[in-house]
Amino acid sequence: MDAQMNVVQPPLMRVNMNLEAALERLFALLRIPSVSTKAAHAADCRAAAEWLREELTTIGFDASVRDTPGHPIVVGHAKGPEGAPHVLFYGHYDVQPVDPLSLWATPPFEPRLSENAAGVKEIVARGASDDKGQVMTFVEACRALRETDGGLPVSVTIVIEGEEESGGANLLPFLLANRDELQADLALICDTGMLDARTPAITTMLRGMVGEEVVITAADRDLHSGMFGNAARNPIQVLCDIISDLRDPATGRVTLSCFYDGVPDMRESVREQWRALGPTDAESLGAVGLSQAAGEVGYTALEQTWCRPSCEINGISGGYEEDGFKTVLPARASAKISFRLVGDQDPDAVRAAFRAHVRARLPVDCSAEFIAHGGSRASVVPEDLPALKPALQALTDEWGTQAAVIGCGGSIPVVSELKQALGIDSLLIGFALDDDRVHSPNEKYSLTSFHKGIRSWVRVLQALSA
Amino acid sequence: MDAQMNVVQPPLMRVNMNLEAALERLFALLRIPSVSTKAAHAADCRAAAEWLREELTTIGFDASVRDTPGHPIVVGHAKGPEGAPHVLFYGHYDVQPVDPLSLWATPPFEPRLSENAAGVKEIVARGASDDKGQVMTFVEACRALRETDGGLPVSVTIVIEGEEESGGANLLPFLLANRDELQADLALICDTGMLDARTPAITTMLRGMVGEEVVITAADRDLHSGMFGNAARNPIQVLCDIISDLRDPATGRVTLSCFYDGVPDMRESVREQWRALGPTDAESLGAVGLSQAAGEVGYTALEQTWCRPSCEINGISGGYEEDGFKTVLPARASAKISFRLVGDQDPDAVRAAFRAHVRARLPVDCSAEFIAHGGSRASVVPEDLPALKPALQALTDEWGTQAAVIGCGGSIPVVSELKQALGIDSLLIGFALDDDRVHSPNEKYSLTSFHKGIRSWVRVLQALSA
Repeated sequence: MDAQMNVVQPPLMRVNMNLEAALERLFALLRIPSVSTKAAHAADCRAAAEWLREELTTIGFDASVRDTPGHPIVVGHAKGPEGAPHVLFYGHYDVQPVDPLSLWATPPFEPRLSENAAGVKEIVARGASDDKGQVMTFVEACRALRETDGGLPVSVTIVIEGEEESGGANLLPFLLANRDELQADLALICDTGMLDARTPAITTMLRGMVGEEVVITAADRDLHSGMFGNAARNPIQVLCDIISDLRDPATGRVTLSCFYDGVPDMRESVREQWRALGPTDAESLGAVGLSQAAGEVGYTALEQTWCRPSCEINGISGGYEEDGFKTVLPARASAKISFRLVGDQDPDAVRAAFRAHVRARLPVDCSAEFIAHGGSRASVVPEDLPALKPALQALTDEWGTQAAVIGCGGSIPVVSELKQALGIDSLLIGFALDDDRVHSPNEKYSLTSFHKGIRSWVRVLQALSA
Repeated sequence: MDAQMNVVQPPLMRVNMNLEAALERLFALLRIPSVSTKAAHAADCRAAAEWLREELTTIGFDASVRDTPGHPIVVGHAKGPEGAPHVLFYGHYDVQPVDPLSLWATPPFEPRLSENAAGVKEIVARGASDDKGQVMTFVEACRALRETDGGLPVSVTIVIEGEEESGGANLLPFLLANRDELQADLALICDTGMLDARTPAITTMLRGMVGEEVVITAADRDLHSGMFGNAARNPIQVLCDIISDLRDPATGRVTLSCFYDGVPDMRESVREQWRALGPTDAESLGAVGLSQAAGEVGYTALEQTWCRPSCEINGISGGYEEDGFKTVLPARASAKISFRLVGDQDPDAVRAAFRAHVRARLPVDCSAEFIAHGGSRASVVPEDLPALKPALQALTDEWGTQAAVIGCGGSIPVVSELKQALGIDSLLIGFALDDDRVHSPNEKYSLTSFHKGIRSWVRVLQALSA
């Protein structure tokens, strides 16, 4: 069955015995509303960092909270046996905003264990999955290893930042400024998902992202639509025209000039593999009340989210938005738009092309203001990375199902930043599920993800020490 | 100079002497936040109605507050000399919402008198112009006439409703149910504007309106744009496509089928008259920071707002709208859209055409929900209405400038409802100015509009008694 059973058994038993206490610790972290995009939560972000520092200290890490121009970064070091590999674990303690609050069944920062209709136990809270639950799988694995083996099988540096959800510009400068201290052989990141609830996965393809906010302004004040309607330029209409022009209605392709520069064609062998492996459109979209893939014609939902670039409108706002009706002709309208990048797409070029697209469509008397919300390139883990094979085996051993190598539609800019600053590759191992409602109301993390996630890291760290 | 000087002099002097007290009374009414679209302000709406009832009672009206399924209606009666004409005055005590509150220089329900850069004294508050200030010009005229002449020169019925700003469906049934009590020869309405700050006007053309709210829904929950972006239908994108398709970009014309059915061609003689009389595009639009007319190609701003139909997006909302960025792919997006109607355009047909336009553009997996927010036909006052000429002369006498006959881009559904329920025509006489910031932050009413507005009504009531 399990070649390494003798080595891993005691810490795995420890994980099982201590699960309730581990859950209590995760709940304590989940109670801290560390929403990084909201200035009002700055103190909560620091509280989460301090909580993690204390936790790491109790399990033998030399841990500290390090100031940045934004939210602080937690760093911890624990030495392994002489000559053992050195891994750097990355996670983030900040969480997404919770709105719309009215859609939460229970308060987002009062974590609870609930049972879904299928009898699956779930941890429900903002950050349960992204990324506090995932971070704690690694921390608890370190605890179990230390409590049973007296130490870790590899040297571990932990870096937990607080600005992942706010396009944080402070991580890369921090990595660069502390490259000697943070030097390691390999990065481990726990911020991705499984292929499905039974199949563990390592993510080797990540999309990059460009976040942009555009504000269109026309008149110098809100007007009465009866007095000025038709004759005065309506910025909502202008914004809708601009957004509508972002996609070719026939092909679903993004119309920005040069947008597809650097986008690699999908290999037919990969497409076939994914068709065999992954969920069908009906399965993946059916889970959220949809039936057919939108977007680019000719690609499945999986292909579109794993390896095609995208353009999404994440928010739009203008004029009267409350109950009832108001015949206002507003002075401004705004939208938040994100582009996911693949291959060699250049975030700066995409941002510039978007701004040119907007400016080219601005009628007389209108102006546009742009706010940049982060930009990162896509990243790919080399297929011949030495750590990949033992890590896949460790996951396969834990879950009893062959671990998969997958892509991910999301963006984890730290992968390319770690490469750039420290010269190291990353292994992305995570236990989130597609239906975790990450970034949505009622976010959850299955208790199995948490429990077997901790056990998985015990096995992966053991495997990497070999 | 003034043929009727002997008759009108005493009440006009009274108006001048009592201006400060009249302003105090208006301020008391302005302090009541009677926002009819917000359920939380229902008690304030009733308080405004009760305040008016008391005020009317003190000046000799037989006044009462009448319940409706919505906000109450104030009715008052005062008999004039035997055989004198009977006029029905209509106004509304409800006001628009105040958002965005942050743009108000002082609290919207704390009225104050301020002086603008040109030294003009202005009453600043929500409702100062629309319509509390205008309503009180008539009430104060009645007070002055009564206090000097012992009574009114004509019989007066006053109807002041509380749902004008919320598309109130309760006025017409009330008029129909009380048609015997409310019978009169002519309606007087004070809810319109002057041609400019020196030129009084009677409005004879009013546009109708259709208010619609549309909600587009796709997935059954908010999604992470990294996990589902491109592949899952984005309702904001769908809504933008629908809105963008509402206008032909080349001609600026509304694309709804049959939209222009019943829209009369402008007579060339009228166009010439307006060009001579009215502000240029540069003047009317320049006042609000714009330079060129948008909308229908080939029509001036004045023509477009006085006698062409329009389509405006009054509000749009979807996804993440707060500070910062959130890569959500929202489940729903909504817009509030209004159409202004002219000539014989049918509100029901326009609403049906809009809904068909939306449904025809709904992709698979999307649904649309519609909420109707009022509908009314355009209305026109006959040029040969007997009261028109003496009323114009009374205004000319007061202001020293020839009173104008104008159109109005706004909609005052009560005109057609009074015609339908009571069989009477309306004279629309108002003293608002284009820059009153009606429906916007820092709404104001010039002290001259208030003062000379009261004096104007004294003269008009005298003129109608002749």
